[in-house]
Amino acid sequence: MTVELICVGTELLLGNIVNTNAAYLAEKCAGLGLSCYYQTVVGDNAERLGEVLRTAAGRSDVVILSGGLGPTEDDLTKETAAGIMGRELVEDPGSRAHIQAYFASRNAEPTENNWKQALMPRGGIVLPNPNGTAPGVIIAEGATHVVLLPGPPHELKPMFENHVIPYLKNLEPGVISSQTVKVCGVGESRVETMLQDLIDGQDNPTLATYARPGEVHIRVTARAEGEKEARRLIKPVVKEIKARMGGDIYTTDEEVTLEKAVVELLVANKLTVTCAESCTGGMLSARLINVPGVSEVYKSGYVTYSNKAKRKLLGVKKSTLEKYGAVSPQTAEEMAKGLASVSKGDVAVGVTGLAGPDGGTEKKPVGLVYIACNVKGEVTVREYHFSGNRQTIREATVSAALTLMRNCILEYFSEITFGKKK
Amino acid sequence: MTVELICVGTELLLGNIVNTNAAYLAEKCAGLGLSCYYQTVVGDNAERLGEVLRTAAGRSDVVILSGGLGPTEDDLTKETAAGIMGRELVEDPGSRAHIQAYFASRNAEPTENNWKQALMPRGGIVLPNPNGTAPGVIIAEGATHVVLLPGPPHELKPMFENHVIPYLKNLEPGVISSQTVKVCGVGESRVETMLQDLIDGQDNPTLATYARPGEVHIRVTARAEGEKEARRLIKPVVKEIKARMGGDIYTTDEEVTLEKAVVELLVANKLTVTCAESCTGGMLSARLINVPGVSEVYKSGYVTYSNKAKRKLLGVKKSTLEKYGAVSPQTAEEMAKGLASVSKGDVAVGVTGLAGPDGGTEKKPVGLVYIACNVKGEVTVREYHFSGNRQTIREATVSAALTLMRNCILEYFSEITFGKKK
Repeated sequence: MTVELICVGTELLLGNIVNTNAAYLAEKCAGLGLSCYYQTVVGDNAERLGEVLRTAAGRSDVVILSGGLGPTEDDLTKETAAGIMGRELVEDPGSRAHIQAYFASRNAEPTENNWKQALMPRGGIVLPNPNGTAPGVIIAEGATHVVLLPGPPHELKPMFENHVIPYLKNLEPGVISSQTVKVCGVGESRVETMLQDLIDGQDNPTLATYARPGEVHIRVTARAEGEKEARRLIKPVVKEIKARMGGDIYTTDEEVTLEKAVVELLVANKLTVTCAESCTGGMLSARLINVPGVSEVYKSGYVTYSNKAKRKLLGVKKSTLEKYGAVSPQTAEEMAKGLASVSKGDVAVGVTGLAGPDGGTEKKPVGLVYIACNVKGEVTVREYHFSGNRQTIREATVSAALTLMRNCILEYFSEITFGKKK
Repeated sequence: MTVELICVGTELLLGNIVNTNAAYLAEKCAGLGLSCYYQTVVGDNAERLGEVLRTAAGRSDVVILSGGLGPTEDDLTKETAAGIMGRELVEDPGSRAHIQAYFASRNAEPTENNWKQALMPRGGIVLPNPNGTAPGVIIAEGATHVVLLPGPPHELKPMFENHVIPYLKNLEPGVISSQTVKVCGVGESRVETMLQDLIDGQDNPTLATYARPGEVHIRVTARAEGEKEARRLIKPVVKEIKARMGGDIYTTDEEVTLEKAVVELLVANKLTVTCAESCTGGMLSARLINVPGVSEVYKSGYVTYSNKAKRKLLGVKKSTLEKYGAVSPQTAEEMAKGLASVSKGDVAVGVTGLAGPDGGTEKKPVGLVYIACNVKGEVTVREYHFSGNRQTIREATVSAALTLMRNCILEYFSEITFGKKK
């Protein structure tokens, strides 16, 4: 079954707001196993909205419209949809009573145009709106289902979850289920090359890759009669991806971010962590600290932006800074070593690099970054070359640091396992 | 002249990502005086993309497509657009050389499919991409202009600004010019109320407000025959906004961010700055350090996430933490005072708060934040209540800290000017 989204609003066409409703509705519909091939944004204009709705109803089974249900003259989604579906608007007593009660509870008087919101297309299924004055409505005509929802996300989301999802689930038997495999430190085209035959050769489940900064997410999606059957289809494909991508996979849990995976690894191994950042200026610590419960492993960190701070707070040698420069493997290494000694962190990460836009030379171009990761005295230093602007270079650096931390911790403990360390 | 946006990508149809490109492009096009009546999202599917592009090219003067220029087989925006516009794809030597250099600078080898990105529709205007491997292209046919841009925002934005804006400006006589007035620490509905008569009553220039985290941007846009005439129309309106919004305006320069305004204020007053962050965990330092040239004023900072770090690194008293808690005005004040003494920064900012999701109580709910700003010994402490998730609470906290820093610095120096301080 196919679904199509139409978001109505001039503020979207002007770019005043980001269309989060479309992302929300699209994700929910994908989770219901509906195929969405089109999303459209159109203004509060009867002619253009009518044209878009007619096209959508002609090619998709379900059309979900959001916005344009307000009380003003500009709001004409309901009028337009009713016209196209050949339904006259009649007053819905329940909606009228709700509007009355809504204003009474706020000690306010509805204005004349508020009553417009109680008019409903004849035969439509009215969707109550406890969070506002605009009810939603579903108009079904043959095999076509047109769903009208209010625009404000805090009204749209509960209405969709409480009324539209049960309605849509009833339309079709079967479920759709998916699992995400997340990989770090490998580019998207490399992942695709490694999985090309699976991507091309699979129909159910399907495979899709999604590039994220410093990461690639691989989603495996199956359709089946029941959840159990869907899981059974997904399992061998995930197993095959694991066999090919191995240690680059940091999670198979949709909810786990790279920073969360690193924090979980720290917690599991009872390791504390600390960061000393130059070019990233606190971004690495900030990303770790976005994980709830990080307080168990993260105690303190430093932003050592100046050379003086690197010397004074971390004990980087003046001679090192003079001989090799602040952006050098030697400085990164001394940052990570000094940091471990001043902070007593088990894992100590030093980051130094040139984020630009100025300060680059032929030998040390903008985008050159060194990251040192010190796990209980074992220091690994890596060189990176990133491109982009100051902000994107810094974001890429943070992802690389998280990947390096993960790899160094895993290596440290795997060596222990294999008896290479006392 | 009309413009229409087509964003290509299965990840948009599945709701995996929010369509920020559409908001960005729509806002920029509105700023250029182009009328946008439709935005469409479609997947990486030649037939459906072709259908959408044909419809768009038939009703709009300019069609901007984003996404689907990657190296994989899925990416077929360029192939589809070239087919519809009747152009064959030929290798562009400049693009090929760029891809070669891009991988060489990363000590990596391009895979076979990377070379696909060097193929360009014959007669197209190639738009170089210094931030990735996918060049953009403009195909003009009669009065229709089809613009193809890469999907990643850090590639799309600079390409649009450096190449597409000048191209679009050339298409129409006359100019459209705009100026942005940026306000911090005041909500959007308050700004709208204060400017309602100007927003409603103006035709040329027009006024529009854009809500940003912790900020509101007011854009004044004029159409005129020449730049000089447009500026003449804008000037009195900006003057009137300044008269009404006064000190809440931090800049009238589109390029100046709030952090940049704060850094400029620090540089102008020869003040160094340092931050000690708990719940924000480095985000405030990171945002300041995103300003090129910040090294003049920012030397070092601390992430003091644990109570022990607050005591050890900043000298916050154990009794204060025990009596008032880590999230209290007293702790924030001691953080800012201790920080000034250990770091010798002229402006020292302490941030402590409850970002959640856990740890909230009735007396101290999630979202409660204290920020202390110490300007040369004068300490101001403010209490804030933010809502949202962990990440949005932390982002709001950083914006509030920057606003407080700005206000405290301005107040400190205005008092000096008026002889209130020795």
